[in-house]
Amino acid sequence: MTDNADPSSPGPLAGFVVLDLTRVLAGPFCMMMLADLGAAVIKVEQPGPGDEARHFLPFIGGESAYFAAVNRGKKSIALDLKLDSDRVVFDRLLARADVLVENFRPGVLDKLGYAFEVLEQRHPRLILATISGFGQSGPYKDKGAYDIVVQALGGMMSITGHPGMPPVRTGASLADLGAGLFAANGIQAALLQRHRTGKGCRVDIAMLDCQIALLENAIARYCATGVSPQPMGARHSGSAPFDAFQAADGYLVLVAGSEHLFERLARALELPGLASDPRFKGRAERVENQDLLKQAIEARLATAPVSHWLARFDALGVPAGPVNDIEAMVNDPQVQSRGVLAEVEGSPGVKLPVTPVLLSTHAYPDVLPPVPRLDEHRAELLRWIQET
Amino acid sequence: MTDNADPSSPGPLAGFVVLDLTRVLAGPFCMMMLADLGAAVIKVEQPGPGDEARHFLPFIGGESAYFAAVNRGKKSIALDLKLDSDRVVFDRLLARADVLVENFRPGVLDKLGYAFEVLEQRHPRLILATISGFGQSGPYKDKGAYDIVVQALGGMMSITGHPGMPPVRTGASLADLGAGLFAANGIQAALLQRHRTGKGCRVDIAMLDCQIALLENAIARYCATGVSPQPMGARHSGSAPFDAFQAADGYLVLVAGSEHLFERLARALELPGLASDPRFKGRAERVENQDLLKQAIEARLATAPVSHWLARFDALGVPAGPVNDIEAMVNDPQVQSRGVLAEVEGSPGVKLPVTPVLLSTHAYPDVLPPVPRLDEHRAELLRWIQET
Repeated sequence: MTDNADPSSPGPLAGFVVLDLTRVLAGPFCMMMLADLGAAVIKVEQPGPGDEARHFLPFIGGESAYFAAVNRGKKSIALDLKLDSDRVVFDRLLARADVLVENFRPGVLDKLGYAFEVLEQRHPRLILATISGFGQSGPYKDKGAYDIVVQALGGMMSITGHPGMPPVRTGASLADLGAGLFAANGIQAALLQRHRTGKGCRVDIAMLDCQIALLENAIARYCATGVSPQPMGARHSGSAPFDAFQAADGYLVLVAGSEHLFERLARALELPGLASDPRFKGRAERVENQDLLKQAIEARLATAPVSHWLARFDALGVPAGPVNDIEAMVNDPQVQSRGVLAEVEGSPGVKLPVTPVLLSTHAYPDVLPPVPRLDEHRAELLRWIQET
Repeated sequence: MTDNADPSSPGPLAGFVVLDLTRVLAGPFCMMMLADLGAAVIKVEQPGPGDEARHFLPFIGGESAYFAAVNRGKKSIALDLKLDSDRVVFDRLLARADVLVENFRPGVLDKLGYAFEVLEQRHPRLILATISGFGQSGPYKDKGAYDIVVQALGGMMSITGHPGMPPVRTGASLADLGAGLFAANGIQAALLQRHRTGKGCRVDIAMLDCQIALLENAIARYCATGVSPQPMGARHSGSAPFDAFQAADGYLVLVAGSEHLFERLARALELPGLASDPRFKGRAERVENQDLLKQAIEARLATAPVSHWLARFDALGVPAGPVNDIEAMVNDPQVQSRGVLAEVEGSPGVKLPVTPVLLSTHAYPDVLPPVPRLDEHRAELLRWIQET
């Protein structure tokens, strides 16, 4: 499908210039996505330490692999926005930018003299995107936010984990990454709007708003019953079996919520009585009696290893899979075939996920672009702003 | 900031027409986002049952709240793409569309006569987005995928939950929603590219690729150590304290990984010895000794309720928050102030999250647009395709 893709063709966002004041995770992740899609992303960092994530563990070969994971493909320049001489450079970069993105606390950009109202006057086509924990309005707007605080406040922790156990955070920083994904959508929507109206705008992204938008059916369930949903391990609220099950040598997951999948599952397990058992005869009955159903399935699964059962489920078309750890995922045939993970130019030993947007005009890259050193592109950028 | 927003102004994607063949979750979530941003989304459904999610629990007032949660603001028409008479209608809708989106298994659209190569010839400006479990290529491409299978295969389940406990799925269908968010980004990038090149393209989105792109630093940690990261409850791999802690009447979360936050925490807890204890004197030491640190913090937290401690942390600027259940989240002052949840026109009793992209040109809506009944917009759409 991407056989005809011209590897030298610029990405879909070629020609757009994004000036990036963001640090740590949500903003940098968003900016990396836009860079992978072809935008020129200029990362403006604090002289000295730079983005604090440059100092986050783990390190590989003396460089932060945490930083590498969300900053490839950008250009770096160190500027102190409190110094007039640096502000002159920043202002010239800004004059060439389509988008300015920041994730300071609300008010910090204003104090630096770049309030939206000022920018709007000077650069009416500029899009300003602000990513913050709680947004630019509301009683919490000045509070610091970290992923775990947002996952806790936003309700995601209350529906993740096992009932009666201490709270669980999703193993990745979902509140940060979700905000980055919505921000990239908002920025692109604003760019498309500018084609029509000729004008920029401000895009206000709050991690908390974004996390709530990712609660899926939990809010609908609360509206329907008046009762807050509870954590339920790996189960689903409206379908069974849909869970992780223990086989002889570990766990697997399987889904057989519909009648025809449930019949296939009974055949795969060689448990013909299962599909005709009145306690499991319809979706509602299976959800109601899912503890019993799980016992019956696990008693059978215990007789053979995961690989045996997955082969049977595959042959009979029952959706199922192993619970891969990161190593197993990296070596998975589908992951390898798609080229989802790629090496990073200049960072030996680091393999990272590509931005998973596969266009017929562009293949996934075999090698990801390099991670910038602090201030690496100063000379190049200073030359560029001199050009007319 | 949005005080000057004209409530009647069309959304940023006004003017774009999206023809939507998607069902259940990832595709409909993506399409709802584009509809919220102003695109005209025409949902083409199977005559009879329609989108199968119309029949998913929970129901409110006889309608599926699950379906309502991801389908507001679209127009519905029922068409059987195997009938010539219905294909004529579909073809005329397609001729007016900027984007066609589907989440069939790979090959189904081809068999219906709408292979990308055919579409590309007939409609060179059309963007075709396909959302599937594993993508349009690779050994798993024909397998059915469900959220839990993707979270298991993709490694997210291996890093979520408590060590030694059965696997945990993130409480929301992150693999579906993540794919929807990347798909919306891919579609918008393709629309921006079309402004430059005049040509459409295919956008291939795989739930598995997307889930892997959301593993955050887990892959970097694996690259650094050669060891797969393990689940760790609510903790962080490189920062401590960063966890859920038990107070007298429940759990709270707090973050104090840096030196200055840790000193503030010690003051808030009135445990002056904490900050000077050599076992906790630097970030690395606190991560290394975090079990001991947690014991010390929880021993103190046990003396007062969550509300007492959150007030103290707030006063001293320690990032912290309650572990809200859905009801507490709905009633949270920040959530209410931002207007993150809104009623849905025509669906009394349902409150749902807005698309969390707040533009200065558009306020969050006070009321979300209605959820279409199956085939509700047939007459309107038939009239529209007659217009020249």
